[in-house]
Amino acid sequence: MNQQYPSALLEKAVDEFAKLPGIGRKTAMRLVLYLLRQDTQAVESFGNALIRLKHEVKYCKVCHNISDTDVCQICSNPSRDASTICVVENIRDVMAIENTQQYRGLYHVLGGVISPMDGIGPSDLQIESLVERVKAGTVSEVILALSSTMEGDTTNFYIFRKLAPYNVKLTIIARGISIGDELEYTDEVTLGRSIANRIVFTGTTI
Amino acid sequence: MNQQYPSALLEKAVDEFAKLPGIGRKTAMRLVLYLLRQDTQAVESFGNALIRLKHEVKYCKVCHNISDTDVCQICSNPSRDASTICVVENIRDVMAIENTQQYRGLYHVLGGVISPMDGIGPSDLQIESLVERVKAGTVSEVILALSSTMEGDTTNFYIFRKLAPYNVKLTIIARGISIGDELEYTDEVTLGRSIANRIVFTGTTI
Repeated sequence: MNQQYPSALLEKAVDEFAKLPGIGRKTAMRLVLYLLRQDTQAVESFGNALIRLKHEVKYCKVCHNISDTDVCQICSNPSRDASTICVVENIRDVMAIENTQQYRGLYHVLGGVISPMDGIGPSDLQIESLVERVKAGTVSEVILALSSTMEGDTTNFYIFRKLAPYNVKLTIIARGISIGDELEYTDEVTLGRSIANRIVFTGTTI
Repeated sequence: MNQQYPSALLEKAVDEFAKLPGIGRKTAMRLVLYLLRQDTQAVESFGNALIRLKHEVKYCKVCHNISDTDVCQICSNPSRDASTICVVENIRDVMAIENTQQYRGLYHVLGGVISPMDGIGPSDLQIESLVERVKAGTVSEVILALSSTMEGDTTNFYIFRKLAPYNVKLTIIARGISIGDELEYTDEVTLGRSIANRIVFTGTTI
C-alpha cells in the first residue's frame, strides 16, 4: 500500500529508521513520532551520537575490537594475560565473554565467520593478522570461541590449519548442555557431545 | 549487570537508541553495530534526517496535523469537503484514515486523549481550537474518531459537551465486529454493541 505521508521530512525520517534491521515502517513511524515529542536537544544528541560514533570510532590495531584509542583498553592493560588469545566473531562476543569475568587474556575479533553463502571468505576476516600475532611468538594458547554453527566450525577448521605450523596450543570452548537445562529437553546432538566430551569430576561444581 | 563497553562513543550511541520506546540495550547494540557497518554517508543521512525533522517540521495552523507548510496539504486542498471535520488523536490516525480512501473531509488532531492517570487534561489537547473552528460556522458535521478506550470515551464526552451549544451534527465512528472476524471469537462487549447499533441492511456489503 502506498502510504501517504503528510510531510516529506517525516517520510524521510521514517525511511531512514525503516532501513534498520528488524524495524518495519509502523515501528519506524512510532519511533519518529516519539522523537518528535522530545525536545530539540534530545533529538540532536541522538543524531549527533550516531554521526560522531561513525566518524570517530577506531578499531584496535592489535585485536580489531572497537575502541576509542589506537590500541584498545584490553590489549593495553598490563594486568591481562598476553600469552592467551580468544578468537571471537564480533564485538558483542567480546562483551559477552568480558561479562562472565572468567577470562583474563586478550582477544582477536575476526569480524565474522567464513560463510560462502553470504560471500564471506577467509580474506574478508582478520585471520592473517591472527597468524601474524601467533608468529610473533609471545602467544602460548589460542582459544576458539566461535558460534557452534556450520560456519563457525568451518572457520575453526580453517584457523586450525593456518596455525598448525606454529608452536601454539589451540583450544575450543566446551560444547554441552547449558547450565540449568534439563537433560530430557536437550537436543540429541548437544547431549551426544556432552557425553563424548565428559571431563573428570573433582567433586566441585563445574 | 554493569555492561562494560569497549568504547565510550559506542556506549553513548547505544544509550541513545535504548531511550526509544520498545528498544532494549541488546537491540540498541545490534542497531548501532549495524549502522557502524554502513558507510559514513548513510549514517550522516540517518542522523541528519532526524535533526532536520525536529528543526524544520511544522504543525498545520488549522488542524495541527504534521506538515511541511503552515497549512497542511489536506486543509489547503480545495477539493476536500471543508464542512466535515474528523477528530483524531494523532498523526498516525490521520494517515490510517487517509489510507482507507473513504473520507474526503478535513481533520482535527487533538494530540492525545484526556487521561488523568498520565496527567493529560483537556487544556493539554487541541480542544479549544476545535471549538473555534466550529464557532466559525462553516462546519456542519464533526466526526469523533478516537480509540474505543476509557480515555477515548471520556474525551468524546468532553467534546460533546463543549460543542453542544453550537449547531453542528456530532457523529461517532461505528463500533462493532471487525471485518473478517468470526462471531464466536468476538468479545462480549463488542458483540453487544454490534447488536445494539445494528443498521438497516440494504442488500449491499457494509
